[in-house]
Amino acid sequence: MSKLDAVLAHVDAHLDESIARLEALVAIPSISTDPAYDGEVRRAAEVLAEEVRLLGFTARVADTIGHPVVVGHDLSAEGKPHVLFYGHYDVQPVDPVSLWHTDPFKMEIQKRADGDTVLIGRGTSDDKGQLLTFLEACRAYRAVNGALPCKVSLFFEGEEESGSKSLPEFLPRTREEFAGADVVLVCDTDMWDATTPQIVTTLRGLVGEEIEITCASHDLHSGMFGNAARNPIQVLAEIIATLRNPDGSVAVAGFYDDVKELPDAIKAQWQSLGYDEAGFMAGAGLTTPAGEKGRSVLEQTRARPTCEINGITGGYTGDGFKTVIPAKASAKISFRLVADMDPAKIRKAFRAHVEARLPPDAKVTFKEHGGSPAVATPSDGPFVAKASAALADEWGKAPALMGSGGSIPVTGDFKRVLGLDTLLIGFAHDDDRVHSPNEKYNLSSFHKGIRSWVRILDKLAE
Amino acid sequence: MSKLDAVLAHVDAHLDESIARLEALVAIPSISTDPAYDGEVRRAAEVLAEEVRLLGFTARVADTIGHPVVVGHDLSAEGKPHVLFYGHYDVQPVDPVSLWHTDPFKMEIQKRADGDTVLIGRGTSDDKGQLLTFLEACRAYRAVNGALPCKVSLFFEGEEESGSKSLPEFLPRTREEFAGADVVLVCDTDMWDATTPQIVTTLRGLVGEEIEITCASHDLHSGMFGNAARNPIQVLAEIIATLRNPDGSVAVAGFYDDVKELPDAIKAQWQSLGYDEAGFMAGAGLTTPAGEKGRSVLEQTRARPTCEINGITGGYTGDGFKTVIPAKASAKISFRLVADMDPAKIRKAFRAHVEARLPPDAKVTFKEHGGSPAVATPSDGPFVAKASAALADEWGKAPALMGSGGSIPVTGDFKRVLGLDTLLIGFAHDDDRVHSPNEKYNLSSFHKGIRSWVRILDKLAE
Repeated sequence: MSKLDAVLAHVDAHLDESIARLEALVAIPSISTDPAYDGEVRRAAEVLAEEVRLLGFTARVADTIGHPVVVGHDLSAEGKPHVLFYGHYDVQPVDPVSLWHTDPFKMEIQKRADGDTVLIGRGTSDDKGQLLTFLEACRAYRAVNGALPCKVSLFFEGEEESGSKSLPEFLPRTREEFAGADVVLVCDTDMWDATTPQIVTTLRGLVGEEIEITCASHDLHSGMFGNAARNPIQVLAEIIATLRNPDGSVAVAGFYDDVKELPDAIKAQWQSLGYDEAGFMAGAGLTTPAGEKGRSVLEQTRARPTCEINGITGGYTGDGFKTVIPAKASAKISFRLVADMDPAKIRKAFRAHVEARLPPDAKVTFKEHGGSPAVATPSDGPFVAKASAALADEWGKAPALMGSGGSIPVTGDFKRVLGLDTLLIGFAHDDDRVHSPNEKYNLSSFHKGIRSWVRILDKLAE
Repeated sequence: MSKLDAVLAHVDAHLDESIARLEALVAIPSISTDPAYDGEVRRAAEVLAEEVRLLGFTARVADTIGHPVVVGHDLSAEGKPHVLFYGHYDVQPVDPVSLWHTDPFKMEIQKRADGDTVLIGRGTSDDKGQLLTFLEACRAYRAVNGALPCKVSLFFEGEEESGSKSLPEFLPRTREEFAGADVVLVCDTDMWDATTPQIVTTLRGLVGEEIEITCASHDLHSGMFGNAARNPIQVLAEIIATLRNPDGSVAVAGFYDDVKELPDAIKAQWQSLGYDEAGFMAGAGLTTPAGEKGRSVLEQTRARPTCEINGITGGYTGDGFKTVIPAKASAKISFRLVADMDPAKIRKAFRAHVEARLPPDAKVTFKEHGGSPAVATPSDGPFVAKASAALADEWGKAPALMGSGGSIPVTGDFKRVLGLDTLLIGFAHDDDRVHSPNEKYNLSSFHKGIRSWVRILDKLAE
């Protein structure tokens, strides 16, 4: 049995223990976006730091201006490549809790009718399960060989789900510490499909905005003031309605100025993948792409920018009815950006769009919720080639090289601050319901994900 | 001292006790629109029933399909007119509680810098304080004369703030009981201004609707589905934006079909009142009437129909940010109607308006929240004349005969079911913040309101 096969066999033999460690991590409600959970976020960091210390890493929980990060190192593999692995240990809120069929923080293992086994709970997929695939790979490697095949640094973030706001301040402080790293590895993305691995080569950027429209100085009785008083919900709705054109494009002036068309070669590769548009939409109960007319679902979700209303609230929202004209209404709005779009420019254009549409007596305040540019990794470099070969060995087919619609702001920061490219390799499925009730991670993703990292580390060390 | 003067003197001498009884009634959080308070609504009914029994009425708490009503009678004034007094003992919700400067259910008496004393608390004005003006008048009359000057029936409702939904079913059962009544007296309206009384001769009707837009089968990650997935908040906003024309008019087809212009005589009378439009708007922190261009604020708020968004919710509305495309979004929308508009027709037109604007993958469900036509009382009848004279005696000037923008559905039911006209006489002020935090009722309204009812009952008995 080769050394590699021995490590893979160790992964297989100890899978139940790996699952138990995921269960323990899921049990910590590390919701970064809600200050009520600040203590749990820190607890998750401390648990992880202790975990990697037991794996032979030096590790510390480092404070930031926001949630703490976990930084670890095992640089004993002299003369070998130095990888910096990034994952995040924070999770999305779980509301509406009533829609969960299980306790979000008590992981359940369910064998489904289709034969797949899934791990259900908040963070099983995004990103605790994915983060652990890498750690468990390190564990197996070390258990069998007594050492890691590469130099490995770890960087676990605690506020990816709330915009990675502290990293621009924190990351420069790690320049010296991470100076020798060759590449960043991130496990926070999807498979191409249930049996095809994927390396993501582009990520959309993100601009988060919260706007509050205020009109009257206090809530008013709609019988007494109805018609005469400017209604901030009406104003907000009218502004939101102007954000999209009838053809599905975003209507903010200048929004597409820096957006380039996909290279023909990439378009052709994507077409060759035989993407099941209808199946993707049907998985969400939908039939008709809502974005720019004439562009495929793949383009709309992975290569085109978007504007989404993520939340809205105003007036009386309880049971029954209240004939109030509220004093204010607010919405959370995000933009996904593609290469070359400048987050600051988009934020400015959006704010100008809103301000130009305020009727008399309506005022607006803006609150910034993070901003990051899109990221592209050269798909013709040596790390992509080696990772592709390792993934092909595990899955029996070459990975798709694909753009992702999501945003992982830290990858842009790694490039800008540390000069490092990032390999985005993840094992999540389209239907994992990340950010939604009943999030799950396929056991096959977890198991073969661990095995994939074993192979990738092994290949990078060649 | 005349009998009347003796009763008025008794009111003055016992005002502190009247205030204490209001304080006790305000202390019961009888919020009819929220099922969590059902028990408190019933408790308020029982307290009131016991109160009027102590005043010599026969009284009972009668069950309806919704909240209970209190029905009482003192018909001992043989040969005298029979008035049916209506008030409501339920109140609006108090959210957002954080904006209250005092406990909403612990009435506070504050002497303001301008010399006025105000009673602060939920329901002090709408309608517990107003309801008590009548009861306290009866109490004083009885205390001095041993009997009431007129036959008096009482009808206290417990769900006026949630659309008086049970009355159409309940009221017909009282036909026999109220058969002898001559006129309905309602105390749930405003003064014309701080020193001028008012008899309201028209009330707007109300149609309440709740719409929910659903798109995807579950909440989606905006990175994964952004652009392609129909966003129900966007759909809802676009639909709401179509409800108003740029000129401030309501854009639902056929909305104004049955709306008549005000008679020239009424228009002239209203103009003669020297209404302070700017002052009214400024009281709410506003400057510019938002309704139909070219129509006065008085017309917009009292004689023209409107469409108001009373509440909206969808997606993530907590602290921080969540990049979700929610599965659904909903809004509470109400229409105020004027004479001759048919609630059922307006509801149908609104629903058709929404359904015609649903994009692919968007579905809508409607929930009905009450409906009532506008009400008009003949302003040239004997009861208006006598009440006007009594009010002029108390306030030193004749009352304004005015339309009100609010809706009191029961007045339409009294006309339709019992054939009774209604005299709407109230003592609230524009700035009472009814339905809002920090609701108040001026002590002068309470005190002179009680005295006004003493004079009105006395005059009607002549």
